Amino acid sequence: MKLRVVLVEPIYEGNVGSVARGMKNFGFSDLFLVRPCDIEDFGLAMASHAKDLIEKARVVESLNEAIAGANLVVGTTGVRGLSTDRHLRIPSLSPRELAEKLQGTNGEVALLLGREDDGLSRDELLACDIVVTIPTSREYPIMNLSHAAAVLFYELSQVEPGGLMLASPENLAHLLAHLRAAMVESEYHRHKIDKTMLMLKRILGRAQLTDREVQTLHGVVRNLRWGAEHRSGELEKVKEDLLE
Amino acid sequence: MKLRVVLVEPIYEGNVGSVARGMKNFGFSDLFLVRPCDIEDFGLAMASHAKDLIEKARVVESLNEAIAGANLVVGTTGVRGLSTDRHLRIPSLSPRELAEKLQGTNGEVALLLGREDDGLSRDELLACDIVVTIPTSREYPIMNLSHAAAVLFYELSQVEPGGLMLASPENLAHLLAHLRAAMVESEYHRHKIDKTMLMLKRILGRAQLTDREVQTLHGVVRNLRWGAEHRSGELEKVKEDLLE
Repeated sequence: MKLRVVLVEPIYEGNVGSVARGMKNFGFSDLFLVRPCDIEDFGLAMASHAKDLIEKARVVESLNEAIAGANLVVGTTGVRGLSTDRHLRIPSLSPRELAEKLQGTNGEVALLLGREDDGLSRDELLACDIVVTIPTSREYPIMNLSHAAAVLFYELSQVEPGGLMLASPENLAHLLAHLRAAMVESEYHRHKIDKTMLMLKRILGRAQLTDREVQTLHGVVRNLRWGAEHRSGELEKVKEDLLE
Repeated sequence: MKLRVVLVEPIYEGNVGSVARGMKNFGFSDLFLVRPCDIEDFGLAMASHAKDLIEKARVVESLNEAIAGANLVVGTTGVRGLSTDRHLRIPSLSPRELAEKLQGTNGEVALLLGREDDGLSRDELLACDIVVTIPTSREYPIMNLSHAAAVLFYELSQVEPGGLMLASPENLAHLLAHLRAAMVESEYHRHKIDKTMLMLKRILGRAQLTDREVQTLHGVVRNLRWGAEHRSGELEKVKEDLLE
């Protein structure tokens, strides 16, 4: 498993440095920064012996650039975030559950950490296959960004990768598009389709499909569509017979 | 399980504040500071909504004061520390192994975190029942103090306490003294006795004895001593008989 750490619009350079240090402590090195604050002396000082990670970090303008090519996109959200838009954030896994899920898999995981004040936005969470929440106390759930990162790195560093290669993001996106087409065709409730698609995306994200499984699911959906078309053809024929 | 966090001679006030924040994030509140640096505005700012923990922290002059009354004393040491004095530090548990060990127990655990530059000294590690090491990368094993603390708090917050009340520290100390007396009496190698006693302390620490188990072990040691004395009495008698 390869981990790509994505900081989305970090505000404090000290936190960026601290996150880099935590990454190196746990053997990770791939850092993406989406529209970050300036990182100057203090940020580099906090990185300590991980300055090189800051120097070679990829600075990008959009989340899409930061997650392009990742097999799995994992968003993080605080306990407080859970109450505001349950549909978006639930089910969320604990860091340990995420690590257990990744055990024995292969591919690249993008881990998104949001702004110090506001976390990840609704749209950013929509882009995630899996959402993770660190179990904190109700009294004071808001963790420092680099502390939350350290806990996640600690868990993810214990994942033993294996031969189970995750499906490519393109194949997953095709499967989701195929499912949407089938739902539209079958006149699924229009106002529910986005929420249901999000749920399907989350389910498939958690299921960690291989490309082979994606192909099989394509086959199932294709068959269902064919069956529906076939039956509607028969229905037409019956109607015609009745009219004769 | 009650957790007491003991920072031994922390150097940077920002770290003390960050540790306090991490404690509150995971529902812990009992902070002891052994000969700390001054904690002023920056330290309190880093504590954020956990300033109260700093304000009510117990500032003490010695480690003994900080660990008095704790049922289990847990020391922390970095991966790098492991190589310098293996006997002192090994076996060391991972944070997860510590949490698993504490599952279902009751009593007060003192968690010792050392200086930012030098960690815990040899003598401080000698005072610990258990030593914990966070598994980090070999390339850059030295974690920021508050990051290491956050990882430990994360693990320990997942411990479900139970009814298994740990033996009191006084009873454990008596048992160790009893063992030492038995070893001296049985002419155990003098130059090995301290190391072996440390190993016994570590073994009993990891075993998490109840008071009842401590009493049973006292009985076993008492019996062994009695048996030795009894046999030496018989031996004397045989010698006397031979001389007659």
